[in-house]
Amino acid sequence: MKLCRFFLIFLCFYNLETNGQQLNDYKLWLKYEQITDSKLSASYKDISSKIVVGESTPSLLNAKEELALALPQMLGTDIEFLSAIDKGNALIVDVYQNLPVDLKSAVSKEMMDVKGDGFVLKSVKLTNKKVTVITAKTDLGVLYGTFRFLHLMQSQHLLDDLKVVDNPKLDIRMLNHWDNLDRSVERGYAGFSLWNWQKLPEYVDQRYIDYARANASVGINATALTNVNANALILTPMYLEKVKALADIFRSYGIKVYLTARFSAPMEIGGLETADPLNAQVQQWWKDKVKEIYAIVPDFGGFLVKANSEGQPGPQNYGRNHVDGANMMAEAVKPFGGNVIWRAFVYSEHDDTDRAKQAYDEFLPYDGNFMDNVLVQVKNGPIDFQPREPFHPMFGAMKKTPLIMEFQITQEYLGFSTHLVYLPKLFEEVLDADTFQKGEGSTVAKVIDGSLYGNKLTGMAGVSNIGTDINWTGHPFAQANWYGFGRLAWDPYLSANTIAEEWLRATYSNEEEFVDPIKEMMLDSREAIVNYMNPLGLHHIFDTGHHYGPGPWVDNLGRPDWNPVYYHKADSLGVGFDRTPSGSNATEQYASEIAVQYNDPKTIPQEYLLWFHHLPWDYKLENGEILWDAIALKYQEGVDQVTQMIKTWDRMKPYLSENEYKEVSMLLEIQLKEAKWWRDACLLYFQTFSNRPLPTGVERPTKSLEYFKSLKFPFAPGIRPRWD
Amino acid sequence: MKLCRFFLIFLCFYNLETNGQQLNDYKLWLKYEQITDSKLSASYKDISSKIVVGESTPSLLNAKEELALALPQMLGTDIEFLSAIDKGNALIVDVYQNLPVDLKSAVSKEMMDVKGDGFVLKSVKLTNKKVTVITAKTDLGVLYGTFRFLHLMQSQHLLDDLKVVDNPKLDIRMLNHWDNLDRSVERGYAGFSLWNWQKLPEYVDQRYIDYARANASVGINATALTNVNANALILTPMYLEKVKALADIFRSYGIKVYLTARFSAPMEIGGLETADPLNAQVQQWWKDKVKEIYAIVPDFGGFLVKANSEGQPGPQNYGRNHVDGANMMAEAVKPFGGNVIWRAFVYSEHDDTDRAKQAYDEFLPYDGNFMDNVLVQVKNGPIDFQPREPFHPMFGAMKKTPLIMEFQITQEYLGFSTHLVYLPKLFEEVLDADTFQKGEGSTVAKVIDGSLYGNKLTGMAGVSNIGTDINWTGHPFAQANWYGFGRLAWDPYLSANTIAEEWLRATYSNEEEFVDPIKEMMLDSREAIVNYMNPLGLHHIFDTGHHYGPGPWVDNLGRPDWNPVYYHKADSLGVGFDRTPSGSNATEQYASEIAVQYNDPKTIPQEYLLWFHHLPWDYKLENGEILWDAIALKYQEGVDQVTQMIKTWDRMKPYLSENEYKEVSMLLEIQLKEAKWWRDACLLYFQTFSNRPLPTGVERPTKSLEYFKSLKFPFAPGIRPRWD
Repeated sequence: MKLCRFFLIFLCFYNLETNGQQLNDYKLWLKYEQITDSKLSASYKDISSKIVVGESTPSLLNAKEELALALPQMLGTDIEFLSAIDKGNALIVDVYQNLPVDLKSAVSKEMMDVKGDGFVLKSVKLTNKKVTVITAKTDLGVLYGTFRFLHLMQSQHLLDDLKVVDNPKLDIRMLNHWDNLDRSVERGYAGFSLWNWQKLPEYVDQRYIDYARANASVGINATALTNVNANALILTPMYLEKVKALADIFRSYGIKVYLTARFSAPMEIGGLETADPLNAQVQQWWKDKVKEIYAIVPDFGGFLVKANSEGQPGPQNYGRNHVDGANMMAEAVKPFGGNVIWRAFVYSEHDDTDRAKQAYDEFLPYDGNFMDNVLVQVKNGPIDFQPREPFHPMFGAMKKTPLIMEFQITQEYLGFSTHLVYLPKLFEEVLDADTFQKGEGSTVAKVIDGSLYGNKLTGMAGVSNIGTDINWTGHPFAQANWYGFGRLAWDPYLSANTIAEEWLRATYSNEEEFVDPIKEMMLDSREAIVNYMNPLGLHHIFDTGHHYGPGPWVDNLGRPDWNPVYYHKADSLGVGFDRTPSGSNATEQYASEIAVQYNDPKTIPQEYLLWFHHLPWDYKLENGEILWDAIALKYQEGVDQVTQMIKTWDRMKPYLSENEYKEVSMLLEIQLKEAKWWRDACLLYFQTFSNRPLPTGVERPTKSLEYFKSLKFPFAPGIRPRWD
Repeated sequence: MKLCRFFLIFLCFYNLETNGQQLNDYKLWLKYEQITDSKLSASYKDISSKIVVGESTPSLLNAKEELALALPQMLGTDIEFLSAIDKGNALIVDVYQNLPVDLKSAVSKEMMDVKGDGFVLKSVKLTNKKVTVITAKTDLGVLYGTFRFLHLMQSQHLLDDLKVVDNPKLDIRMLNHWDNLDRSVERGYAGFSLWNWQKLPEYVDQRYIDYARANASVGINATALTNVNANALILTPMYLEKVKALADIFRSYGIKVYLTARFSAPMEIGGLETADPLNAQVQQWWKDKVKEIYAIVPDFGGFLVKANSEGQPGPQNYGRNHVDGANMMAEAVKPFGGNVIWRAFVYSEHDDTDRAKQAYDEFLPYDGNFMDNVLVQVKNGPIDFQPREPFHPMFGAMKKTPLIMEFQITQEYLGFSTHLVYLPKLFEEVLDADTFQKGEGSTVAKVIDGSLYGNKLTGMAGVSNIGTDINWTGHPFAQANWYGFGRLAWDPYLSANTIAEEWLRATYSNEEEFVDPIKEMMLDSREAIVNYMNPLGLHHIFDTGHHYGPGPWVDNLGRPDWNPVYYHKADSLGVGFDRTPSGSNATEQYASEIAVQYNDPKTIPQEYLLWFHHLPWDYKLENGEILWDAIALKYQEGVDQVTQMIKTWDRMKPYLSENEYKEVSMLLEIQLKEAKWWRDACLLYFQTFSNRPLPTGVERPTKSLEYFKSLKFPFAPGIRPRWD
């Protein structure tokens, strides 16, 4: 036989994951992978293979289902649910008032510290057995505790001697979806809207449930389903039935639904001739509409409103003001326990004051006039979610009105979903900022959590980065921004460092050799993007409309304050926006401690330099560099940081599956390409004013300024809805 | 201890699949689930646990990877890849010319019958061992054979005595994606476009690879990436780089990329002042553009063109004709082996001829004038993808021009992605139709495969139903329509019955108790939708624009032939479109055998009755019913059929996971609701003309005609792109 001449060569055993990675990414930080450390696994089995869950409510049932999903996967064994503790060890999962008497007394001390939907995790030793207790005042608290317990297991904490008490520090922990009814998402870079209005209410997509699980796992308890650039149709019966279906799913995960209210809805869908908030018919229309909503969504959260902002209708169309508008709606939802969240993101084309000053000027006079179920929602900075902004001067200044923080999780100005940028670092910077409005230590976090002025209602909102992409957020690392937002909304004093570690362990690996360098990479990533996009306080120099890529040269938009040249003010003498008393005097909106420091280019933190000062190209910085060189070197530093990220990621190959490695690797290549694009385009443009050579160490552009100006992206994702 | 008083009650072992079902749906018909029949599994292991794959080409590597993915899952064991056969049994996977000599001779007889990318699967007995051979002339043929081999295993065929020779019967087996550059999909109901232009070319989504695998598994070998309502930007360098990235992925799966060419592109992106096909500059522009494309996509398939149709630009804008336009492009792609596929879907608002006649009238005179690399793409029927149409009269009549069939897989007029409708049943009806143009037996299939007139180039195109939904097609059963289209493009003589069985076994289960009733349900589903939407030859009575739901009353559109009233012509005397010699005489476009039969309401098949005849409401049908009663009873029958589908599905619970059961169950509820909506709205409307009561057996509508007329769906999915 000729065949005998062939030799057997053993090649390999394959273990392909042809479409495995994306499907694994879908699971977010709830992967519940098998714990390979056998000692640890044994200790977990010891405490959690027999479980007693109080089964009386949907939220407790969710806790049970999560345990039933997670534990067998992590421990590689079946688990048993018992109706009561027997002779062996057990895990008890129930609200405090339903615990057996002896367990009640064992956790009573910790329960004294529990507030709202906070929880206790505690190891209790009883005769011959160990009982691990997950308990809370509310069933939702128990669900939160269950997620925390599972998280501790995922991140391989020893659980033998548990004693955790944790409370949410803010009331409203909310996602804002800028989702349109045609499923496009304004500033969405992860596919399209999760809400499949066409198939609702009948078809309950599994994603709705998994969305709710992910949110509950970090304590997010509210969601505004629709774009703040609102369409009134969402308030019609056909859509409200669909909203009800979502609310019904989210309820047992503790998530309340909010809707965005188009101010002119009484005219558009109500047949009225005005939307004047002082008109009795208009007031009645909103009352009736609210009654209609609460009849089918009894725990409806309330309205989120963008009014008289960027063309949206509002009370000013009728000569009324924000208080008139907000209180009219607040009156309508008040009997049902609802809230009105009124956005402070306003700036007018008819106002030639510095845009950064306008929200403060427009809202401060109303402090104290809003009803007590109104929150004013303020973006973290005074312009618009730039890679870096100083904190918004309304924080600390507006004392009698609860301010809800608005962060942007979706990366409109931070590289869409192709750039790895860890945003909790940005959020933390804002929350830690000291407003000095009630003396030193008056941080933004203390404004937000109500502790500074004793506001009764508190909250944090994040503009969602979630879409239909299988991995939810487009970039695998953008999941960390959703996670991190949730954690900070729960506790605005958590560090970005802690959160990064939590997320990495649950999402990727518990190996120190992986976690440490990648955590470092995440923590540095935000400064990298500031450097390669908007260093030294530059801001809003993005290309028009879609905000994709650099456009510092753009000067032809309908409104002056939409043009990048408005913000950088580069000329032959220098660059930067003078917001000191010699300029727009925006610094006067801050406490004097800050104003004094910021007014002087020698004392202002360098990262805000050009936000507040117009300085000559040869202005000397503290380190001896002239401004032009410093700008150029910062752009280069940003590019170098991305190169470094690529190297770091490459070193992590041993800890990653091939597809895990590849997907981030491909994205980092785009990030590097775009970082260079930013550097080259901005430096070539600013060079036309500075007329100075690039300093040593800065790579020479390989394309011309004309080339960069010629680039057009009519189909960049996330643009404003075209029916608007 | 008080705890001792509690009794242990064993509750259950959970095996949740919280987000499992959707992720499983992602795998389509390539699930490769473990084979639980141990005898069968042993016999498969016997022949396939040692494998030799020729490794010289990317397509063979794909075959190897597919085996490496599939076999360990199905057989629950590792497999070994050898570089050559050793002493034991083996599976050999290689092109014929590389087989060892003794195997070559063992399959030489079968290889005589192989054509193109066809393949042979054969069990060969050699001394002391059994060798299973997967071979072909081309490496792509080997990949096709590998998929077939794995399919046979998935569907539990005995493989001990394999002898299969199978050849593709059509050359171009093609998907048409009506995908826009903003990722909206015209007539798309499964989310949005797979093509993430923003992240291309760098980011290779795993979905592109899995899309290619799924297509290759059924033999689809071409894809037109973009909407026939085309945007010229796809032909600019920035987008061509992205197209190249997709083509590079698809190549090793045998899939050629086509693009839709906007006829006015030379003006829009070329800076010319005309797009006149006889203008030398225009001709040169296309030649240069084609050269540019082939430089980066050497196996580019060619252009798909919608010209002078529904507002698209075309040669007629310059006083030229279809031949002038098509041949100009054909000239440009000819040197590179490319094709031009020119759509015959034309009808003019300035032509008051019956719309059903216009394509035939416009194209027949050009028969024989097109270059030999032009195919004319003809929709299955003369109007527009209705639930039922007679075959298009161009089939069989246009003899010298290769006609490529255009089927619509996406369910524009067939319930979007919420109705379970098995389309191969519709496709089969068309392919089996006898045109009589070359005597009896001149079926559409024989026109399409070139055997009737000896056309050299053949093909079938399907308008894709694929989108970003995790399950690809929105409805799990819509996967069967993608699968079935591919199988019929490979072999237009396959039966819908066979295909349904193949798909069910690979997708759901091999249990006869499941396969038999569900196959029956699928086969009946197409007649059900005809009954509850468009019975007895009614057609195009859909609501405006989005085509969601009934709109027989619509009479106010810009063009008469866009109005439903144009098509049903209901009046006090009767209903239906007279297309006999006393009316539009559309029947004259068919062979006389058909014309004679169709001209007489007594001899025409009842399902085409009102397509060709305007008949009185009390016209007596063969079964004694009067027309009005027959229409009403058909609508009711359609509703009853959906009720029956729900009952059938409910009985299948034992064979399904909870989520598998639930997702289809929820969709069937929507289907039932919408079937009733169709019945009630259409009968109430037609009753205003017939003035007759509903016959016994037809449920009474619970809403009024005014209610149905008032329904508006401005955000129904799949509408025309708004930049168009």
